[in-house]
Parts: sequence; structure tokens; C-alpha cells
Amino acid sequence: MLSSRFLRQAFTQPSRRFNSTLTGLDASKVKLTKSQTLKPLVANKDLVFGHTFTDHMITADWNEQEGWLAPEIRPYENLSLAPSAVVFHYASECFEGMKAYKDKNGNIRLFRPDMNMARMNRSTARIALPQFEGKELLKLIGDYAKLDQRWIPEARGYSLYLRPTMIGTQEALGVNAPSNAKLFVIGCPVGPYYKTGFAAIKLMATTEYVRAWPRGTGDAKIGGNYAPGLLPQRMAAKAGYQQNLWLFGDDHQLTEVGTMNLFVLWKNESNELELVTPPLDGAILPGVTRDSILSLARGWNEFKVSERKVTMPELREAVKNNRVVEMFGAGTACIVSPIKTIEYMGEDLQIPLDPNDSTSQAGPYTKRFNNEIMDIQYGDKESDWSVVI
Amino acid sequence: MLSSRFLRQAFTQPSRRFNSTLTGLDASKVKLTKSQTLKPLVANKDLVFGHTFTDHMITADWNEQEGWLAPEIRPYENLSLAPSAVVFHYASECFEGMKAYKDKNGNIRLFRPDMNMARMNRSTARIALPQFEGKELLKLIGDYAKLDQRWIPEARGYSLYLRPTMIGTQEALGVNAPSNAKLFVIGCPVGPYYKTGFAAIKLMATTEYVRAWPRGTGDAKIGGNYAPGLLPQRMAAKAGYQQNLWLFGDDHQLTEVGTMNLFVLWKNESNELELVTPPLDGAILPGVTRDSILSLARGWNEFKVSERKVTMPELREAVKNNRVVEMFGAGTACIVSPIKTIEYMGEDLQIPLDPNDSTSQAGPYTKRFNNEIMDIQYGDKESDWSVVI
Repeated sequence: MLSSRFLRQAFTQPSRRFNSTLTGLDASKVKLTKSQTLKPLVANKDLVFGHTFTDHMITADWNEQEGWLAPEIRPYENLSLAPSAVVFHYASECFEGMKAYKDKNGNIRLFRPDMNMARMNRSTARIALPQFEGKELLKLIGDYAKLDQRWIPEARGYSLYLRPTMIGTQEALGVNAPSNAKLFVIGCPVGPYYKTGFAAIKLMATTEYVRAWPRGTGDAKIGGNYAPGLLPQRMAAKAGYQQNLWLFGDDHQLTEVGTMNLFVLWKNESNELELVTPPLDGAILPGVTRDSILSLARGWNEFKVSERKVTMPELREAVKNNRVVEMFGAGTACIVSPIKTIEYMGEDLQIPLDPNDSTSQAGPYTKRFNNEIMDIQYGDKESDWSVVI
Repeated sequence: MLSSRFLRQAFTQPSRRFNSTLTGLDASKVKLTKSQTLKPLVANKDLVFGHTFTDHMITADWNEQEGWLAPEIRPYENLSLAPSAVVFHYASECFEGMKAYKDKNGNIRLFRPDMNMARMNRSTARIALPQFEGKELLKLIGDYAKLDQRWIPEARGYSLYLRPTMIGTQEALGVNAPSNAKLFVIGCPVGPYYKTGFAAIKLMATTEYVRAWPRGTGDAKIGGNYAPGLLPQRMAAKAGYQQNLWLFGDDHQLTEVGTMNLFVLWKNESNELELVTPPLDGAILPGVTRDSILSLARGWNEFKVSERKVTMPELREAVKNNRVVEMFGAGTACIVSPIKTIEYMGEDLQIPLDPNDSTSQAGPYTKRFNNEIMDIQYGDKESDWSVVI
């Protein structure tokens, strides 16, 4: 098979994404089919992250001959796929996580959605899935969020989590770039990622497994980055920690948490107050919340802000010398998540908390980041980052 | 969500695979539903690898409360899965590749199928999917292969490729070990993996991307290992090479080919004739064909057999000093695949071929490995490796 197949790929596929004869994703062609029966809403207090889905979904199919076919907004329902579809065998899949918020005036808002579109196109490129027009997908997401807006919870801390996903659907077992793909978006009303709400969590540093490496795929939001994390996460959970902390290298560099980027606010070796997060070296997910925190912190200009390597021995030393001020994770699902403990090599490192806040235990800077971002997300503070749809 | 969820996992999931109250996979419970319409067979000459599927498939569902439900052999048909199913988002998927052969007496044979079952259970364990009873799945595969035996091509070089696959089906977006899974097996009649048949291929050494890493998942047959290879493979194809060759480390160690393990037969630095393949250091797929070749070569006892590191600079040096005798890839899909060229850092390294064989160009040792393995697979030579079902 491969000789002709490869020749065909060689001459047609590299250009298939930029071929002007292929149709781009076009929101104006959307076919709308409304659900005949609407599901009952779930009370905010009963929401479990990622368990409840709205009445509709967006779908769009792509093939290498035609490009993107007309997208659809249609009832949320099962996908019917051949058992040979490449997504089931070679993890031909990538996704985004974003949220729609309802502000006090009833407007629906997205937070920096252009960043999700750009990152998703970088993810698809990395695994040979097709490119798509991000602006068009955002138009579709806008239509979809308005159609299903009764599902957007109104309380602060609640939102409609949106999950754009692209999968390879080619029905063939040869290991080749997919000739067919499906883009879909589903939505689920969510509250805090952790049942404990905005409250400090415990991490277990994983020394037995490595998440990502140079020239790998750690900076792409592809499915294959996640399955290998389920086992370390279960090991952490078994020991009573909410998430695992991924390390890298013989010197045990901090990289990221199971589902979040990681920040340390400390007095560094030079006794400077410094907010530090691991650099985007290709093995770290370039989080939207991560970028937002760095941008806010640089705007405050109250302490040094660094994207640089930090190792666990350095962190341990800082904890023991009382130089760590606060630590937190950051991601779309949790926004900001204070950290109270990190297990490392059999020892629990205790991170300072606010003793006067018995609920979240979050320190003042962690709270401030969380509040500033939420103020923008819910439209309580004007910002270009918040887009009314 | 996580606190109760994690506690539940912590106390129930680690033991769920070994919990005697959960039901194991049981072939004797199989529910058989025969297809009402049988598809037309495809002539051997028209077979494209992984494109034609038989009339039936095996399926079995698992959940963490009950274990394995009764398996089914039923008509080959689409899977219906929620768009929130974990397989679409976090690459909760692993697979095997094996083949059923028809011998000259009409018996159906499998080749070392116990190795596939053991490896698949190692793969599922690595990504927190459930264990299954390999002997029971082999019984089901036997029933299935007999039912669809008209699809097993009879010519040498042809077989029924079998694809056992397990996917996580839990309908939830939280990043957690799946509470639900589906095992399925599909089959497709195949000839040579490459359209060129048993003929020497060209490889392009990939220096821009890295496939696997120590403490990663390179030794597990999980979907997530494959999607990141589609781009380097397309780049190789664009330049006229059939597959990419994965390297590792600053010294550019040879690891494996896109879909095969790799062997070098050379006169080493000590002028010994040596067959060398990269060692199973956790980042190399432990191939069944790889193991078989090592075993055959050790049995012949005609040259040194080594599992050790070899770097591209060492190989380049050996090519230039005419010390390389033959090179070949090895895998279930292709069995043995002679290699004639390796592009490395802009230079084509030419590997010796048999000038008297204008068809395969394969050297005598490469041919001998291929023939000995096929003799066993097709039952022409008695061996414990070949199992009549």
C-alpha cells in the first residue's frame, strides 16, 4: 500500500490545508436542528464537573477531497463511528477547554477565546489533523451558547464549560495521517473543578513517570498526553492527594500539575519576591490562565515575574527556609487552585496558607489572581480578554 | 468533585481488577449474532492493508461495579458512543496487532498469541484500563476466526490481521481512570503491509521529534504513541521515504521505525559479525516479531546477538567502512522488511542489498528470518509458536 499511498500523501497532503480548492469551515452554512425534547436543568449544587451535557452540540466533518462540509448545530447525541476509525487506534484527537459566562446584565461572555482557537490549530497540526478557521468556529460556538443559554449557570464560580474536540475518522488501520476528521463541540454546566470548591489542594510529586519531554508533544493539547497520567493520578489519589505533580529530568524540575500549570511565589535565592512558573520549552502546556496570570502579575509590577526552571530540591530548600510565600495551580477548569502540600520523596512539604481563611486557606496573592480573573470573566471588570457574544 | 471521587477511587479502584466479586471475561458466555448479509470477498491482489473488514466483530463491555459483561460476536458495525466518552478526549485506548493464518491443511493458526494478550494487559494497566483474561479472549478470537474463516486468504504472505482494541467509554470530562470500557476485536484480510510487497524500503531518521522517553509509555501499545508519529511520517513520505526512523538522545541512538522494531547485522567495532537491536529499556515496543528474531538468531548461533544501544554516528561510520551487512525492520504487519537507505542529517546512507535479487533486494539473512518465521506462521515448520485454533 505505502508506495502509492505515500506518493499521494507526498504530493497532495502537505498542501491540503492550504489548498484554495478545499472548502474552509464556514459558520454561515450552519444547519440548525433543534432538539424536540429539552432535558431538565441540574441545580448548581448538584453539578459534578463534566457529567451533565446540554441539549445540543456542534459538529462539522472534513475530508481531504472537499475540506470542511457544512457545520451543524443539532441535538446532543451519540457519535456513530466505525470500529476501525483512526481515533480509536492511534489517538488521532485533540481538544480545548473554554468557558461561557453569564454576566450580571445577562450577556454571554467568553474569555480569550482566540487563544483556544490558535492553540487548537497548533494541536491539530502536530498530529496531522486539518486546520480550521478559528473565527468561524467561534461564531458557531456563539450561536450554540445562545441556543443553550438556559444551561449557563448564573452564580459566580459557575459557567458553561465548552469542549471543542477534533478526531480522525478515517476507516483504515494503516498508520497514516487521517483523510477524514470530525470537529465537535459539547458543553456542560460546571461549578468548581474540585468538589471542595476554591480550597487548597494536596499534590504528590511523581518520580516514577514522566509526562513530556523535549521534541515530544507536551505543549499540544492532544488526547495522548492525558491517558498516561491516569495511573499516576490514581496513585496520588490512593495516597490522599488530589493531583499528581509532574517532574522532569534527573534534577526533578517542576513542570505542571495533572490538569493545571503551576506557579510558585517565593523569596528566591537572592531574597527577591518572585512569581515563577516553568518556561514554555515545548514540554509545558501553554495555558490560557497561565498566560493571563503572567500578564496580570507583570501589570501589577509588585514583584519579579519569571518563566524559568525550578527544581524540587530548590523548592524543598525554600520551604525549609520559609522562603515560599504561596503556591497555586492555574487552568481553565479550576481557574486558580491554591496548593497546601506537596509530597516529594516520602516527605510532605507544607506550603504557607492564610490561617485566617478557614474555607479556601488561599493566601492573598492567590486570591487576588483568582478574583481579578473572575472579575474579567464575569464582566465585572472591563477587559479586552472578555468577549461578549 | 474530586474529594469524594478520589476517595472512592482510592478505596475501590486499585483493587477493582483483582476483586473476586467482579466478573472476569468469560468466553463461554458469548452471545453469537450472525450477520444476515455477508459481504463480498476482496481478491488478494486488491487488498489494501487495513481497509477491508470481515462480517463480524467481537465486543465486550466492562464497568467498575460488575466487571466484564457477557461478550458478543456480532455483525461488524459502527460503535455508538457519547461525544463525552473518555476515549475521544484523553486517548483512553490501547490495541494489539496479530494475524490468523490458514495452513495447507486448512487449519487456522495464530502466532504466539499469548504474547499479544500479555502485552495488551500491560498496556491497559499503564493507562488505567481494566485487566482481562487473555485465555478467554483467545477463545473468543478462535471462535471469531472460525466464523469468519472465508476471509482468511490462503496464499503465503496473506492472512487475517486481527486488531484487539480496548477503549475507555465513561461519559465524563473529568480526567479520571475510566469507570467503563469496551473491548473489541475486528479483522481484516491483508497482504504485504507495503504495496511494494517484500521489498527493500527507505527510512528517514527523524531528528526534529522524539517518540518516547525513559519513564514514559514507549513500551506500551497505546494509541497516544502513534498520533505524534503521523507528522514525521508524512514528512518522510513527502521526501520519498516509506517510514521515519525514531532516534533518541543527543547521541542519536536508533530506537525503532514508525511501525516496526529495527535490526542491524554488521561487523562491529571488534570485527565480530553481530545482530544488534535496541534494548527494551522502557522506551521501545517489545515486539513479538522482534522477540522471535532474537530467539531464532540465538538458536542458529552463527553470530553474536545483542540488545544494546547503537547510535547513528556509529552506524554511519560502519556504512562508510563497509561493515554493515544487512538491516531490516520487524513487526507483525510486515514480518520482516529489508532496508536499503537511511537518510540522516541530509545524507543517504546506503545499506547493502542482494544485487542478484531484483525483486526484494533483501540480503540472505533478512530473507532467512522472513522465511523461517513464515514457515512457522503457515504451519510448514513445526513450532510451539504456531497455535492451531
